[in-house]
Amino acid sequence: MPNNSPIGVFDSGVGGLTVAREIMRQMPSESIVYFGDTARVPYGSKSQNTVITYSKQIVKFLNTKHVKAIVVACNTATAFALETLQKESDIPVIGVIKPGAKAALKATKNGRIGVIGTEGMIRTDIYTKYLSHINQNVQVFPKSCPLFVPLVEEGLLYDSVTVEIAERYFSELKGYDIDTLILGCTHYPLIRHTLQKVIGEKVSLVNPAYETAKSLKAVLSTKDLICDQDIPTHQFFVSDGAEKFKAFANTILPCDVVETDDVNIEQY
Amino acid sequence: MPNNSPIGVFDSGVGGLTVAREIMRQMPSESIVYFGDTARVPYGSKSQNTVITYSKQIVKFLNTKHVKAIVVACNTATAFALETLQKESDIPVIGVIKPGAKAALKATKNGRIGVIGTEGMIRTDIYTKYLSHINQNVQVFPKSCPLFVPLVEEGLLYDSVTVEIAERYFSELKGYDIDTLILGCTHYPLIRHTLQKVIGEKVSLVNPAYETAKSLKAVLSTKDLICDQDIPTHQFFVSDGAEKFKAFANTILPCDVVETDDVNIEQY
Repeated sequence: MPNNSPIGVFDSGVGGLTVAREIMRQMPSESIVYFGDTARVPYGSKSQNTVITYSKQIVKFLNTKHVKAIVVACNTATAFALETLQKESDIPVIGVIKPGAKAALKATKNGRIGVIGTEGMIRTDIYTKYLSHINQNVQVFPKSCPLFVPLVEEGLLYDSVTVEIAERYFSELKGYDIDTLILGCTHYPLIRHTLQKVIGEKVSLVNPAYETAKSLKAVLSTKDLICDQDIPTHQFFVSDGAEKFKAFANTILPCDVVETDDVNIEQY
Repeated sequence: MPNNSPIGVFDSGVGGLTVAREIMRQMPSESIVYFGDTARVPYGSKSQNTVITYSKQIVKFLNTKHVKAIVVACNTATAFALETLQKESDIPVIGVIKPGAKAALKATKNGRIGVIGTEGMIRTDIYTKYLSHINQNVQVFPKSCPLFVPLVEEGLLYDSVTVEIAERYFSELKGYDIDTLILGCTHYPLIRHTLQKVIGEKVSLVNPAYETAKSLKAVLSTKDLICDQDIPTHQFFVSDGAEKFKAFANTILPCDVVETDDVNIEQY
């Protein structure tokens, strides 16, 4: 696989763009092929088998773009499908959970870690399993926050309604004396300022998007896959609603998204 | 088809339960087979061809249960697939749009009708087309309200946040002097009290779920298909997440949902 091949990044929708953004920031020369499964979003309410089937189709599609590595920029897809994808793939496949969990273990001083995410993601209990597996002394406090994704997608990033909803979701978490909080959904970095205000300045927020980009850089470096070009070429694909996706992507990415193409993902 | 056969009702997810509930209220002896396509929800972001394919699969499944009539309890599926389903079916197939639109035309005095729904449904413009087709003098004011479905699914039916969001969505609508408002999404009847408070008592809310059950009763009566049993048997099927569906169904239906079964709908 040539070094200047692109990195494949996929998510159930637009959330994974926060991961793509971190990759662009940390590795500005790397090209990205992004796929958002906007026709079948959300993954959080779907069964493991369904999410595995969907993820395999997307990997098949990304491989047609000759990607040199794949980032599963979706917490649910990482929880449900990462192992299968890694087993079946010849190129590196990286998820968002391990990097986030490792950073949380580094950040915590009192061993009390909160995790927030969608209902489906929290139900998998993946962060708790992974954190306790590495360090049996940490205590994990998971909390599902189903309204954050629709609030982000409605653009209410600093809105009083988002503050009010965050206060309700965090009221219980605040009683647990956590000092670290994992943003276990790729949409949440977009409201991290609001969340930080509500949870308090003493709690460290862990952004798995940032940590995943760091891990990816390390993996590419180890495998000698870092690109040697200067100007990257990014491509964006979705399974439905290309125009809406493009508009959203342009509000959060550091580059201009000129074109987004529709893909019939069920053919893969 | 024997009169005591069940009525098939389907939706992209849980929303159609408001239609099933109205059928149970208006025809308490009729049996229902409900199918919620929870694995592939939402339909609003999908293309017409995809929604037709999905709807045909569901009708095929419902026919294995020997239903005597089918209710398409989903605005998007009605907009995209009703005509095709009616052409290909030997039994009556009823959608939610015509009954809602007709009731709105009956209710309005000033000919100014608002329609609210999900983004995808509003994009189809189906209510505007249908209302203007019947009466060229009405003016239709559509407004998409993407946060209502997640707020309903979070159970915030009478909550201050739902009031605040409704006030924002309706601020423009209120300037149009509408006297009738169609609830163009099957989730919305669950927040109709909140919506009525915000839009004002002078605006008539049209609940297509209620009107659809009324239409169904009329059709069954005309075709001499009303059942003559006393105790109905309801069955519930979903394409994913049977337990979660059952919990939600039990909060809104007048009967106990004892069992919900998973169906691999793509096999049909």
